[in-house]
Amino acid sequence: MTYCVGLKLDRGLVFMSDTRTNAGVDNISVFKKMFQWEVEGERSITLMTAGNLATTQAVVSLLNERSLPAEERGRLSIIEAPSMFQIAKLVGETLREVIAEQSGIEGPQADSSFGATLILGGQVRGGEPRLFMIYPEGNFVEACDDTPFFQIGETKYGKPILVRAYDPAMTFEAAVKLLMLSFDSTVKANLSVGMPLDVHIYEADTYRHGYIRRIAADDAFYTRISSGWGDKLREAVNSLPDYSFE
Amino acid sequence: MTYCVGLKLDRGLVFMSDTRTNAGVDNISVFKKMFQWEVEGERSITLMTAGNLATTQAVVSLLNERSLPAEERGRLSIIEAPSMFQIAKLVGETLREVIAEQSGIEGPQADSSFGATLILGGQVRGGEPRLFMIYPEGNFVEACDDTPFFQIGETKYGKPILVRAYDPAMTFEAAVKLLMLSFDSTVKANLSVGMPLDVHIYEADTYRHGYIRRIAADDAFYTRISSGWGDKLREAVNSLPDYSFE
Repeated sequence: MTYCVGLKLDRGLVFMSDTRTNAGVDNISVFKKMFQWEVEGERSITLMTAGNLATTQAVVSLLNERSLPAEERGRLSIIEAPSMFQIAKLVGETLREVIAEQSGIEGPQADSSFGATLILGGQVRGGEPRLFMIYPEGNFVEACDDTPFFQIGETKYGKPILVRAYDPAMTFEAAVKLLMLSFDSTVKANLSVGMPLDVHIYEADTYRHGYIRRIAADDAFYTRISSGWGDKLREAVNSLPDYSFE
Repeated sequence: MTYCVGLKLDRGLVFMSDTRTNAGVDNISVFKKMFQWEVEGERSITLMTAGNLATTQAVVSLLNERSLPAEERGRLSIIEAPSMFQIAKLVGETLREVIAEQSGIEGPQADSSFGATLILGGQVRGGEPRLFMIYPEGNFVEACDDTPFFQIGETKYGKPILVRAYDPAMTFEAAVKLLMLSFDSTVKANLSVGMPLDVHIYEADTYRHGYIRRIAADDAFYTRISSGWGDKLREAVNSLPDYSFE
């Protein structure tokens, strides 16, 4: 499995992904699941992937190849499409195309073992920062005020803390901390999600990549947050009244 | 889906289950998933069920029918078997029998849509309190110091808080609070788990049922814990240092 989260904040977008892939518990590897495209001063695009690794790698390769300026092609590439919506459409079509090719079946393939789900976010000059979740069928939904974040992969362990503590006005520093807590809960509970983590922070209206970092398992801040959280959580539980048997 | 947890503490056993069953999101009902058998002064047995409702109801009915003193039968019933291990074996065999009958296929049926998973716990005089998880195949595992609790159904949302805050020495009052937090996280994140909750607290070496209660959605303590937890969790997140972009 995988765990990736895209958060939409007032200040911009925050992306975090793990790097573990597995084919059974005895075949574990580290693969990057976060990819970026940039036209400085004009657009910054981030893609995170969950699902069949062959499918997601083929999607990213096709998106890259089709972004080559020299290439002859009949349609606009990810670095040329005029809006985030058009980019989401293009990525969705590419995903559906790869799944159809790898499974040998035409048409939407939600249940296919070649399936994959993507989070796409970014900003193109002339538009707002936008965040999408793209399904194996190639269609997609966009984050809004009511649902300001998307998770893909092993989403359940880390959801309660996001639901409770997310605030659109939070700082990037607080958002990274919150995501680390959500990832830490997941990593502690499920072997198929693992360190290191990739993070990208896109600040609204900058039209260039922001802070991009790989966070290792022995990262000083991460280990401090992870061990501190156990204590804080126990304190929080203890500070609530116990049940009473009347 | 369903959410049930059985906790093994130094003082005894704590069981909690939700009551929602669904066949699609538009067909939701309330069904009890926690069942007890007692021979006062001699044994107290609790069973919680997740999976196909027809299967789990048939298992409970068979266990009940076979406990009737008047019935002629070739084997010991759940209220006669000499140990918790023998009871777990009997329940597992009954489960496998029902799945085989309902699916029309002999042999272990892990993947069957008629499947179910059970948590069984209790104490029979002469033995310790014991807690088991019983699989659709009819086999089972027992809780130990390293894995002192079992969850069935929609287990992921509520696991991180259990992993972090469980302590075998905790009081029953603290354990019920902890379970309520685990259930609240799950109910808030997943429509297929719903109120009310059933709770049973078995105190070690009493050999009779303990505190049994149904907790409604408007229960004063539950609503206080649920709303208080959001605040405490945000406080806990805020009390940790924010990430810094060096």
